[in-house]
Amino acid sequence: MSWPHPLTGLNEREHIRLINSLSGFRNAFLVGTADKQGKSNLAIFSSIFHVGAKPPLIGMLSRPDSVERHTLENIRATGCWTLSGVTCEMLPQAHHTSARFDRDTSEFAATGLAEDHLDGFHAPHVKGSPLVLAFNLRDEIKLEINGTVLLIGEIQRMNFDRQALGKDGWLDIEKLGLVAVSGLDAYHVTQRIGRLSYAKANQTPEWIEGGPQRS
Amino acid sequence: MSWPHPLTGLNEREHIRLINSLSGFRNAFLVGTADKQGKSNLAIFSSIFHVGAKPPLIGMLSRPDSVERHTLENIRATGCWTLSGVTCEMLPQAHHTSARFDRDTSEFAATGLAEDHLDGFHAPHVKGSPLVLAFNLRDEIKLEINGTVLLIGEIQRMNFDRQALGKDGWLDIEKLGLVAVSGLDAYHVTQRIGRLSYAKANQTPEWIEGGPQRS
Repeated sequence: MSWPHPLTGLNEREHIRLINSLSGFRNAFLVGTADKQGKSNLAIFSSIFHVGAKPPLIGMLSRPDSVERHTLENIRATGCWTLSGVTCEMLPQAHHTSARFDRDTSEFAATGLAEDHLDGFHAPHVKGSPLVLAFNLRDEIKLEINGTVLLIGEIQRMNFDRQALGKDGWLDIEKLGLVAVSGLDAYHVTQRIGRLSYAKANQTPEWIEGGPQRS
Repeated sequence: MSWPHPLTGLNEREHIRLINSLSGFRNAFLVGTADKQGKSNLAIFSSIFHVGAKPPLIGMLSRPDSVERHTLENIRATGCWTLSGVTCEMLPQAHHTSARFDRDTSEFAATGLAEDHLDGFHAPHVKGSPLVLAFNLRDEIKLEINGTVLLIGEIQRMNFDRQALGKDGWLDIEKLGLVAVSGLDAYHVTQRIGRLSYAKANQTPEWIEGGPQRS
């Protein structure tokens, strides 16, 4: 098997696009924050991942704070944020939040996404998003290798249509209409192949809902 | 807006399934490792994420090492691993690797996924996977909050069909046939909506390939 070196023949921008493609599909989420005075900020993030269930923890990576990072500054100042799941209908506004807006510009106003607030929770979220999670900051870890900042939040509140919650606790995020992202700028809808039974060493898992014939 | 508390009315297993659903879509990857004697191991992981492009870094979370974790032990012993992207055709074998197999059992042999080796690279990968990445360990960080272990690897080699690589460096992982995962056990194929242009503050991004009419 021939293995090309990662960087052969690519310029810097092409290299960045390729490396950002290699981690595969992720979920598109909008991070909602506000500064101490309540000025809101919204930014699309894609490095967001499960850290643990008890307590319920989700991590996200922020790029280095060597330049102005409004989301990171707001989280450090207020200790909280929200995640709003992105749907087809929220594109391309959701993608627009990745532009460099001034500190005084709210991405809600600039992109046309509607701002909503939970009573008693400082950080705003996107009105109409079918999956909203609210976090308190539990830990911040700087990854010395490249200055990236890992933020770990504990889920304080959640909101979604209860019809998407299965009897066994599994949440059907496809039914909620969430989109997946690949690379820096590609968005995808999904079609469920199925669910597989809990894996045991001595038997091959079985399709408990759906199966390959659906794909 | 009414926000239910996360845990209302759910038992422990339901709670775990729900919390594991909330981080949204991820890519299904198989982590290939070997111990110092070359005995191979394969395990499906889903908390895998971009950390940086220069150098090319990808992170992954391993659950706490309070019980036997063969993948983690092998990485600590040898400093390397591979990721093999999962396709429809590799299900349900790929899911089967999440079962508790004995230390002496190779998940390749137990599940029927074929093992392949790159000359000079210690960790095995899945033969026929359309996206294979090979890593050297660059950093290991224990997340004190719950004992989870963050492993950061630098990409050493990569292998994919060059026909999926766009002129601008974006890799079409949908064309490669990779599947997305949600929750602990649901697998999805994707359909691309489109790609959006680089976001600038003063204009709404445009669809550069595809668009909502395709979905």
